[in-house]
Amino acid sequence: MKISFKLDYKDSKTNARLGKVLFNGKEYPTPMFMPVGTQATVKTLSPEEIKEVGSGIILANTYHLWLRPGEDIVQKAGGLHKFMNYDGPILTDSGGYQVFSLAKPKDISEEGVKFKNHLNGDTLFLTPEKSIEIQNKLGSDIAMSFDECPPASASHDYLKQSIERTIRWAARGKKVHNNPNQALFGIIQGGPYEDLRKYSAIETTKLNFDGYSIGGVANDGESKLDMYKAIEYSTPYMPEDKLRYLMGVGDPIDLIEGVIRGVDIFDCVIPTRLARHGHAYTKMGKINLKNNQYKDKFEPIDETCDCYACKSYTKAYIRHLIVENETFGARLLSIHNIRFLVRLMENIRESIQKGTLLEFREEFVQNYYGGKYEVK
Amino acid sequence: MKISFKLDYKDSKTNARLGKVLFNGKEYPTPMFMPVGTQATVKTLSPEEIKEVGSGIILANTYHLWLRPGEDIVQKAGGLHKFMNYDGPILTDSGGYQVFSLAKPKDISEEGVKFKNHLNGDTLFLTPEKSIEIQNKLGSDIAMSFDECPPASASHDYLKQSIERTIRWAARGKKVHNNPNQALFGIIQGGPYEDLRKYSAIETTKLNFDGYSIGGVANDGESKLDMYKAIEYSTPYMPEDKLRYLMGVGDPIDLIEGVIRGVDIFDCVIPTRLARHGHAYTKMGKINLKNNQYKDKFEPIDETCDCYACKSYTKAYIRHLIVENETFGARLLSIHNIRFLVRLMENIRESIQKGTLLEFREEFVQNYYGGKYEVK
Repeated sequence: MKISFKLDYKDSKTNARLGKVLFNGKEYPTPMFMPVGTQATVKTLSPEEIKEVGSGIILANTYHLWLRPGEDIVQKAGGLHKFMNYDGPILTDSGGYQVFSLAKPKDISEEGVKFKNHLNGDTLFLTPEKSIEIQNKLGSDIAMSFDECPPASASHDYLKQSIERTIRWAARGKKVHNNPNQALFGIIQGGPYEDLRKYSAIETTKLNFDGYSIGGVANDGESKLDMYKAIEYSTPYMPEDKLRYLMGVGDPIDLIEGVIRGVDIFDCVIPTRLARHGHAYTKMGKINLKNNQYKDKFEPIDETCDCYACKSYTKAYIRHLIVENETFGARLLSIHNIRFLVRLMENIRESIQKGTLLEFREEFVQNYYGGKYEVK
Repeated sequence: MKISFKLDYKDSKTNARLGKVLFNGKEYPTPMFMPVGTQATVKTLSPEEIKEVGSGIILANTYHLWLRPGEDIVQKAGGLHKFMNYDGPILTDSGGYQVFSLAKPKDISEEGVKFKNHLNGDTLFLTPEKSIEIQNKLGSDIAMSFDECPPASASHDYLKQSIERTIRWAARGKKVHNNPNQALFGIIQGGPYEDLRKYSAIETTKLNFDGYSIGGVANDGESKLDMYKAIEYSTPYMPEDKLRYLMGVGDPIDLIEGVIRGVDIFDCVIPTRLARHGHAYTKMGKINLKNNQYKDKFEPIDETCDCYACKSYTKAYIRHLIVENETFGARLLSIHNIRFLVRLMENIRESIQKGTLLEFREEFVQNYYGGKYEVK
């Protein structure tokens, strides 16, 4: 059964929305943060732990799974759900983001993108059709259209040509997509330019996808202000009854700002990446557990957190594990950090319900940044 | 409450024994395999997973914990159980094994052993008293006496002097041990020499420890035959009502051969180390999941295994995780490999009960080695 979305409520003071993703008889409330499981595993976590922290949809990377183990292996396994033993909803990206970081501009043609396999240097060619074919075989519940992901430094002129091609690519991908159980999303590009975002949104939504994402944000060198603009310029032209997905964004403040601007779902590797480096989210900001001061702090990372790590382990112990490169430490921090973002989304949803989302943002900024946060 | 041991049954055809370790109102049957948690964590596993695979006692390393985080930190945390959130029994080694691999012969004196901290090169000095003091602070349930661990190549003459000093060290350690809740074990040395093992066993047991281990086996270069001899030469002089512990041994066939010769408990890093390298135990021998042939094997490692990894994951998926260096793969294999050894001990105990231990060994050898196993 294809995944679906139901919009339940619209905030009157902001563009925030409450809704739910329906999948296999279960409801997953939005706004929602999606953990990333690049290689069909959310790094260090079991599927049971992914669920225990309250995750809904998770994301897997088409590019990585295409290279290894290969989409045919995953298909033979019965698809991603069976392969990785996860029965919640799974979204796959198109592979574009990874491919464009490996390709040179001259390798991008109307047909597709030529690039070198980062593992063995082989030349590969990815097209909109191929991306959809791979995602079909992977058996995700939401597939993404193959889009060009230009760098933050791309000019208006370049972006204009790029989004036109991306729209043609989206149409080509949709044409070959023939899996009635898999939703297909379109991607809106256009950098920080109002006219381009508007054009991309209008033309992409004309193709009538099952949902839409805002891409080309969270690139290296992009300012938060540009990211927020990209959202603001896109959402007015996105249909209300379909999921809105801001790709690759996971900084807590960006989740709040994104929701305020009308985004429903987010994904990012940051909670698990921070975890592997010994960092933990707290209401009072991020802390680095490698710091010597935690050596003898026999208290949880956060007294009010309900995650497994906070219920049973101290900063001192987790610090010890991280310093010793014991993977159980990265696992405890991954659980905590994902739970932190999932709880943040829970709190955001409550605030929308109560009509206090802007007050919630102020309180969050006060605690997390000591009141000193300014959008730049 | 101090841990205790009860001998329940003696096999009539071999020297195998059935018994139980009593700790905190719970019974842990012997013969038993103890997983190793060097840094107060069994690599990749949570305490819940350690229990789920049926582990009883686990081992933590005094040397490593002394260096980091330091015994004072562990003591302030409330001891190892609280520090690592494990309420089952914990045994600590003396630090001797690690220290002797770092020390040069001239650094060994009657007083103790001088060696360089492997982390920062600082000169450290470990004595029998210091080892006990550290283990007291760590708060393990079983502490080990500080012993010299000579290499497999040590001469009879050297070993003779060494075991005499080890016996004096054992007496010194026992003198300063004043923790009524912590058992203290003596260690029998003597290499593969009957006269030395006998002497060491008789003199060490005179000191009346809570249990005894057979040390100086499983060294680099030692043959299995020498290991079995060391056991055979020691057990006749070890009291029947106390635990017998063969240190650092975990090869499945050695567990069977050790039990046949009267050993109750074993420890080894091998199941978790093999796991991190992608190897899995099966009844038909070890397999290396990195091998290409497992790429599309959508079946569990062992159909008859009841572990979490075998219940929910295929060889193909675990292989994928291992190839991609995803730690969840090492976790699944660690669970499987420890469970394999724990189940082996369960099967061994059943065979003792039924009087069929020797038949069990034959059947195991037939499957695991294809019948081609020969003790060398």
